[in-house]
Amino acid sequence: MAGLFITFEGPDGAGKTTQLKLLAEALKASGYDCIVTREPGGTVISDRIRAIILDPEHQSMHAPTEVLLYAASRAQHVLEKINPALEQGKIVLCDRFVDASIAYQGYGLEIGEAQVRAINQFATQGLLPHKTFLLDISAEEGRRRLVERKQAEFKQGLDRIEQKDLAYHERVRQGFLQLAEQEARISLIDASQPVEVIHQQILREVRALLHVKEENDR
Amino acid sequence: MAGLFITFEGPDGAGKTTQLKLLAEALKASGYDCIVTREPGGTVISDRIRAIILDPEHQSMHAPTEVLLYAASRAQHVLEKINPALEQGKIVLCDRFVDASIAYQGYGLEIGEAQVRAINQFATQGLLPHKTFLLDISAEEGRRRLVERKQAEFKQGLDRIEQKDLAYHERVRQGFLQLAEQEARISLIDASQPVEVIHQQILREVRALLHVKEENDR
Repeated sequence: MAGLFITFEGPDGAGKTTQLKLLAEALKASGYDCIVTREPGGTVISDRIRAIILDPEHQSMHAPTEVLLYAASRAQHVLEKINPALEQGKIVLCDRFVDASIAYQGYGLEIGEAQVRAINQFATQGLLPHKTFLLDISAEEGRRRLVERKQAEFKQGLDRIEQKDLAYHERVRQGFLQLAEQEARISLIDASQPVEVIHQQILREVRALLHVKEENDR
Repeated sequence: MAGLFITFEGPDGAGKTTQLKLLAEALKASGYDCIVTREPGGTVISDRIRAIILDPEHQSMHAPTEVLLYAASRAQHVLEKINPALEQGKIVLCDRFVDASIAYQGYGLEIGEAQVRAINQFATQGLLPHKTFLLDISAEEGRRRLVERKQAEFKQGLDRIEQKDLAYHERVRQGFLQLAEQEARISLIDASQPVEVIHQQILREVRALLHVKEENDR
């Protein structure tokens, strides 16, 4: 792979989308070819799968169905969009990836990490991010920020995943923290810091990565 | 499981739906509590997944996406509908199940039997049919019957799976025949025989199964 694949992870309301946009702007200003995408979604087919996953009407959805739908959406996203962009040497910034499935489904839904990993290994054909920024925030604070934002956007309510209880969201957070301990590619970031402080930290790390990559490419 | 789980498999146009209806009518006439269902589909969520799979617009769908969508649809079908019916002691007649994924995706799309089996093991939590009737017909004859039927129903065209080429459908058939050799629960039936001849053969086998089951239940 000639490109660079960077993902943003963390609970709802941690500020992933804001940081992703700031990083994309900074990289584009420095002349890098960079695409921004998100999961679930990212392609026409993945967006149709996303709509099924998040529909608040689908309260009867069982946990294995949810795991397989996320994996299906991800398979299409990787094969149709992420892999081709990486092959063209682009920087791909992605809002959530496999770590999210491990945290939300493996830990949150208590399906177990190994099963979720095995299915996602098939979905991604083994693709892993070069760098992952995990924006960490308490489940209560994440929930508070999310509700605030939805109100500001005049949204009617929370989607099916957002509606789950605080114990679920706490298990998700613990899952993310476990992953950060296990995987060297994950940088754990305290998301209660000011937006600009976080942005500068992320930018420093990405510039260091790009420097190493450019040295290697020479 | 107190119930009996019977599946019908075979290429398009082999007559599965006709045989399934005839068997259901015969069993109901004998006083059995029997439900008829189909894959992909069978529940509200599974039907929404089915629509994504079959949409002729989705030519860009990659093979792993297709495998995972079928598995997701099946997981919901098993957990929401098939398992509860079996627990209530019902006879469940299902149009296609895991064997179809192994034949169509494992062999047809050439993903390999082991991968498709592993993902479906997770989706079904290990549920297997007690009996499977495989209606066998040549790929050419299946295609001919299917086109004829679509014309009779004034349908505009074939769905995304039906549109695939004859070599694909020939690989699917070989996959089904392999499975029939491997698995004792599969009864291979020559689908070029008259409808009533096939029905009587199926009914004899099911009555024998029910007889054994009723002896055991005593």
